[in-house]
Amino acid sequence: MAKVLTTKEENYSQWYNDLVTKADLAENSAVRGCMVIKPYGYAIWEKIQAQLDKMFKDTGHVNAYFPLFIPKSFFSKEAAHVDGFAKECAVVTHYRLKNDPDGKGVVVDPDAKLEEELIIRPTSETIIWSTYKNWIQSYRDLPILCNQWANVVRWEMRTRMFLRTTEFLWQEGHTAHETSEEALAETTQMINVYASFAEDFMAIPVIKGAKSANERFAGALETYTIEALMQDGKALQSGTSHFLGQNFAKAFDVQFANRNGKLDYVWASSWGVSTRLIGALIMAHSDNNGLVLPPKLAPFQVVIVPIYKNAEQLAEISVKVEQIMVKLRLRGISVKYDNRDSQRPGWKFAEYELKGVPVRLAIGPRDLENGSIEVARRDTLAKSVEQLENIDQVVADLLDSIQENIYNKAYQFRAENMTKVDSYDQFKELLVTKGGFFLAHWDGTTETELRIKDETKATLRCIPFDSVEEEGKCMVTGKPSKQRVIFALAY
Amino acid sequence: MAKVLTTKEENYSQWYNDLVTKADLAENSAVRGCMVIKPYGYAIWEKIQAQLDKMFKDTGHVNAYFPLFIPKSFFSKEAAHVDGFAKECAVVTHYRLKNDPDGKGVVVDPDAKLEEELIIRPTSETIIWSTYKNWIQSYRDLPILCNQWANVVRWEMRTRMFLRTTEFLWQEGHTAHETSEEALAETTQMINVYASFAEDFMAIPVIKGAKSANERFAGALETYTIEALMQDGKALQSGTSHFLGQNFAKAFDVQFANRNGKLDYVWASSWGVSTRLIGALIMAHSDNNGLVLPPKLAPFQVVIVPIYKNAEQLAEISVKVEQIMVKLRLRGISVKYDNRDSQRPGWKFAEYELKGVPVRLAIGPRDLENGSIEVARRDTLAKSVEQLENIDQVVADLLDSIQENIYNKAYQFRAENMTKVDSYDQFKELLVTKGGFFLAHWDGTTETELRIKDETKATLRCIPFDSVEEEGKCMVTGKPSKQRVIFALAY
Repeated sequence: MAKVLTTKEENYSQWYNDLVTKADLAENSAVRGCMVIKPYGYAIWEKIQAQLDKMFKDTGHVNAYFPLFIPKSFFSKEAAHVDGFAKECAVVTHYRLKNDPDGKGVVVDPDAKLEEELIIRPTSETIIWSTYKNWIQSYRDLPILCNQWANVVRWEMRTRMFLRTTEFLWQEGHTAHETSEEALAETTQMINVYASFAEDFMAIPVIKGAKSANERFAGALETYTIEALMQDGKALQSGTSHFLGQNFAKAFDVQFANRNGKLDYVWASSWGVSTRLIGALIMAHSDNNGLVLPPKLAPFQVVIVPIYKNAEQLAEISVKVEQIMVKLRLRGISVKYDNRDSQRPGWKFAEYELKGVPVRLAIGPRDLENGSIEVARRDTLAKSVEQLENIDQVVADLLDSIQENIYNKAYQFRAENMTKVDSYDQFKELLVTKGGFFLAHWDGTTETELRIKDETKATLRCIPFDSVEEEGKCMVTGKPSKQRVIFALAY
Repeated sequence: MAKVLTTKEENYSQWYNDLVTKADLAENSAVRGCMVIKPYGYAIWEKIQAQLDKMFKDTGHVNAYFPLFIPKSFFSKEAAHVDGFAKECAVVTHYRLKNDPDGKGVVVDPDAKLEEELIIRPTSETIIWSTYKNWIQSYRDLPILCNQWANVVRWEMRTRMFLRTTEFLWQEGHTAHETSEEALAETTQMINVYASFAEDFMAIPVIKGAKSANERFAGALETYTIEALMQDGKALQSGTSHFLGQNFAKAFDVQFANRNGKLDYVWASSWGVSTRLIGALIMAHSDNNGLVLPPKLAPFQVVIVPIYKNAEQLAEISVKVEQIMVKLRLRGISVKYDNRDSQRPGWKFAEYELKGVPVRLAIGPRDLENGSIEVARRDTLAKSVEQLENIDQVVADLLDSIQENIYNKAYQFRAENMTKVDSYDQFKELLVTKGGFFLAHWDGTTETELRIKDETKATLRCIPFDSVEEEGKCMVTGKPSKQRVIFALAY
């Protein structure tokens, strides 16, 4: 098979687009900014969903479903929220079409105009808090710990598959609490859940931290984030968890009788991750041969390719392969046997390399004689011949090793691309020549943050939770600072 | 706890609405015709989804995701489809809001009008077949067996929670095949999957059959249906599978090189079930005390209520309950322990009866002494005292027995309410006095079918697959007929 991908070095952005389409993850649709998630890409999303859903339930959450539509007036109720979300969104104004009186086709029926326009949810705080009002009377009704798996729409001007699309799939948690402390603890718990998921399942190291006031979610008092570093040196915000204070409770008048019998407004958090995670997965690990998937999220972890000259050989091989598959499946390993006669082994090898299948097994007549099998790992492309006898143990160990190795590789890459800078000139130079995360002192003002963004396009990714206190001076203004924060170019 | 439900006998429709809201399944939202699916209701949907998804995958299907929006012009491409679907639907005409120049709030930005309006999908044949065009060149690309779990919107004038809502959740399968036979076989396979699911999991007997031309899906050559009988004697169409012929392939110009090297249009099927199934579940089994859930779809199958006077007693009971829960969970039985101190046992009993939990265990100090436990089954409300020793086996058997019993009860009810009629007068009388399914001869014309609907409101539910050939005369026109078909009032 000829090389199908533009290389990263040639054109990173084109490499990404090639990979998404050639590996059958997604493609652009007939609707501007909306993608079709193809079965192979959707299978990764299903793996992500299943694991996250388990983690949400293990921490006491339940799923529910709220309407796609939000009355326009709801957006005006929370002052900060309206500025952040009620702008670029899809607006439903009519509820009927009719046959075009002047010819073929259909036209919007002008008589079917809605009294109040409906907005396709860009996020659901408003519709959910208007609902919670009916659910909450007393502290006994709290906490409410709901999550929703849903589609949302934000009318983006520049879109890229998975990273930024007009419609995308996500989950949004919306919780209601008696106290500020409880809501903050929930906000922290969920950013920790996201970080564990990113590191343990996606094999992507992330930095946990707080957003600056300027980068906070519209309507939040605190936004916590996990920030991942992509191979082109840019940051990708991969999940956020918001402490909303009493803002939405006040906007929708959600009060409860507290333990002292007094009325108080309810405290809130919200948190979400989206199909953007698949973009992170692609950009963190893949290479010029295609995807590299972490075994824990691969739609199938092992592919077996038979090498044969005739039907008789194939039949013999298939008997052995059946036995191998049984052994692998008993260990919970997912495996696909590609015995299609329409493609050659070499074509299949390239295909599964492109699709990032973690382990490839190839078996031919000589292997049957020798009781051996060829094992190839996708991450390093290394091959070895192994005994068939313990193949299930070998593959299980190899999958663990691959999961660990791609995490370590990503961790190593981030370590090499996390730079302490102490002068603005040095920052500006290295931002262009090296990229990555920059640890710098900042005076804490939005003014300075915006100046940096304006002059360099770099944004303040987060104030890391684990940053050590250290006296320093803002790299731009020289004003005093107590800790370093992270700047980077970002998606 | 006071009776919270209107009885079925008083007002069936009110009983249903009461049940949906009081059992915490769903509630009406701030958006007309759209419901909020509450956590308990959504947990049932998750059970339905998990089982169906498994059945789809076991029959070779994969999931994918297609855009929420469909360009208006797509609806005009398939002549029959446009009449059926492009009428009552939500139309997006703008993509931006702006601050109201005349005061507070936001208004639609007139400068952000879409060139072509977008329709929120009422079903996805059009957007999917416009996508399949790019996926299919040769017979080697076939079959395509995709399913999608999604929300859809149909602008219904009269809505009822779960049964008919403006937005609803569903799955839609869309398959593409080389031959007419293959597409028809798929259509049949999927109606059989739905019927198995309805009978084996929902415990609802269904009649499989074909829709008349008049009741077919817009754009289909055949629509197969499963029809269930509700306790008020009305039919509920619970799932449909459509043979679409080459209609959508022709509308979107999807041709493939067949095995003879000639270009041919692709053959199609589509099939779907929705959150309406939850409405079926409620109406088929529930009683005046509340929900009756089949154990296989209950969010939790067993609830344990401690009976105690003081903290010490509760502590002793809880130790024993922990042991019981471990034993039950080892058998794959889901169990909830309600040790809340804020509610009395009697309140809890009524609450779980209302919520349809299949088995309730109650355990007090005397039980600890005697090594016993009280077991109550929701379907018959029968109680017994059982030995603690084998409680896991007892509960497992009981859950099987409940699943079987509620199926048998529904089957019995349907048998009693399935009436052969041979004259139109008899039909009209019994339709009012008895209700249920009516097996009648029909002359096969849309004219007669519409006359019956017009005069009685009854509709032709289906031409059953298992109806025996029998010479007869149409009950209305007296024209010859070869088999009985099913008429009923319907949701």
